[in-house]
Amino acid sequence: MKIILDAMGGDYAAGEIVLGAVDALCKDKDAEVVLVGKRDEINKTLADVAYDKNRLHTVDAQDVIDNNESPTMAIKTKKESSLVKALDLLMNDGEAKALVSAGSTGAVLVGAFMKVGRIKGVSRPALAPVLPTLKGGGVVLCDCGANVDCKPVNLLHFAIMASSYAQVMIGVDKPRVGLLNNGVEAHKGNELSKLAYDLLSANEDINFVGNCEARDMLSGDFDVVVSDGFAGNIALKSAEGTANLLLKLIKQGVYSGGLKTKLGALMLKSVFKEVKTKLDFNAQGGACFLGVNKVIVKSHGASKRGAICASILQAKDLAEKNVCERIKEGIVKADLQSAAE
Amino acid sequence: MKIILDAMGGDYAAGEIVLGAVDALCKDKDAEVVLVGKRDEINKTLADVAYDKNRLHTVDAQDVIDNNESPTMAIKTKKESSLVKALDLLMNDGEAKALVSAGSTGAVLVGAFMKVGRIKGVSRPALAPVLPTLKGGGVVLCDCGANVDCKPVNLLHFAIMASSYAQVMIGVDKPRVGLLNNGVEAHKGNELSKLAYDLLSANEDINFVGNCEARDMLSGDFDVVVSDGFAGNIALKSAEGTANLLLKLIKQGVYSGGLKTKLGALMLKSVFKEVKTKLDFNAQGGACFLGVNKVIVKSHGASKRGAICASILQAKDLAEKNVCERIKEGIVKADLQSAAE
Repeated sequence: MKIILDAMGGDYAAGEIVLGAVDALCKDKDAEVVLVGKRDEINKTLADVAYDKNRLHTVDAQDVIDNNESPTMAIKTKKESSLVKALDLLMNDGEAKALVSAGSTGAVLVGAFMKVGRIKGVSRPALAPVLPTLKGGGVVLCDCGANVDCKPVNLLHFAIMASSYAQVMIGVDKPRVGLLNNGVEAHKGNELSKLAYDLLSANEDINFVGNCEARDMLSGDFDVVVSDGFAGNIALKSAEGTANLLLKLIKQGVYSGGLKTKLGALMLKSVFKEVKTKLDFNAQGGACFLGVNKVIVKSHGASKRGAICASILQAKDLAEKNVCERIKEGIVKADLQSAAE
Repeated sequence: MKIILDAMGGDYAAGEIVLGAVDALCKDKDAEVVLVGKRDEINKTLADVAYDKNRLHTVDAQDVIDNNESPTMAIKTKKESSLVKALDLLMNDGEAKALVSAGSTGAVLVGAFMKVGRIKGVSRPALAPVLPTLKGGGVVLCDCGANVDCKPVNLLHFAIMASSYAQVMIGVDKPRVGLLNNGVEAHKGNELSKLAYDLLSANEDINFVGNCEARDMLSGDFDVVVSDGFAGNIALKSAEGTANLLLKLIKQGVYSGGLKTKLGALMLKSVFKEVKTKLDFNAQGGACFLGVNKVIVKSHGASKRGAICASILQAKDLAEKNVCERIKEGIVKADLQSAAE
């Protein structure tokens, strides 16, 4: 299966992105990757590694979209950018099934929206990362920033799309859906979440289990947590920031504590490593842009080869399991249900 | 100075609440506490401890408001509850300067609003905890849940009130105010935060330093972070939840890792203890309800004697430093400024 990779997106492009592709080809013999970006840079990295030339292709693109540009303007005007050419390829190459980029989130979302298009009936596509949980599984957070102002029906659609996505990514049959809220009680919330609560409760196609306080988001009691993109972004970044803060505080304490604490830290090295792996917000690949007609995976801007490799394999898995088709069916069903009411 | 304490509020009432009062009297010879609650229960705890009888008083209240009641109904009908009697005492006893409760947040807020009243000009009183930061100071988060739907002017008032509060609590002259947002760039945000950004930028009485992503909330780069109560609640609880999750994961790793990791953990005991203390979200007392006419401190429901003691001393400090007067002046100034524009 052919995956398109934006070789110029991300803080470590092109080197680490290219190496991520090489790793993915190594791990999955059915994978085929098209690197879109500056050919010289790509070739420089490829010169030092062994890879299957039949499954790694290059398309030259001399321009790059960066994080500081207006996404809409960039997509419209930068025809020679790696992202725009990658999106065009995704739509025009019949064999291309998915796209991965670690570039500007805004540009990837706008580009996907404009060039790949929404699934019919989806009110708003949404960005959905899979976060780690205490119990070792994952939880899909949807939306984490694509839609900062939402209507209740958007949140219902997020629940439907993320449920299909969770079936594939987490492997649960009836994903438990929670609504991110400021309390567990049914009457809690702001205007949006109260109305969304009613919509989610009334829908029979999703397994809505009630409100989810932000402190329980990673508990493992939910497979999907839906939210407007503003609050979802706050929840995600607050979790990331606190995890980093806590690890930094431990490090500070170890360094300032003398020989005993340094020895203790050495003895706990395996534990810290395991905890870091468990709490790695990018271990499961990138965030999927749900609700567009093709699989688009947005990797973290700071992705290195490991994260890029994970995103490529994730994108391939999602395409193979027809996640877009599943979302399409879910939305049609929900529309029929609301039409019948 | 006389502080009123709701002896029946919180998961560990009355015992731990009463002990917290005893501790506070011990720590501060100028403190005087009135315990409002079931006299028998209070006396049972007091029987076993030594305390200065001249500075600890009891007012009997046989009823209790719990977390599951409608706050408005409870405040209106439960005249004999510890909270209502405490609020009445705060308003009628000329010497009473502040109130502390670890009871139902909703009931404390509604009670304060109805019985103590808003400071003139304050559009919405708000709940403001002081959170720990990486650099060791504190950051005031305002609002963390009292107002789930906000207008831009509410956020401006939160900034003014929280700045006065931070001057007292954190001891900075010109508190750096950040706006909780989904990106640092000026154009980022939902409708509310974009409009609030403009209002905050235009106001000369506060030291607005720009948007604050949730991941930087505890960085120490901000003294005040303003937000609507919904997003603020999400940010706070996500931080709390992640800190707990990470410590649990470390514990799990230690226990399942054999003798070496257990020994390592023992050697790092002091570090873990220090980190826990640094990341204690209730170390600085409770959340202050800013914008009402008297000092009201809401302690965490799970507060034990240490947290209650901290809240009493915090309430006393706030009253001594006239935080309500300062807020009043700040709001008047802001009103004059906007009238002059």
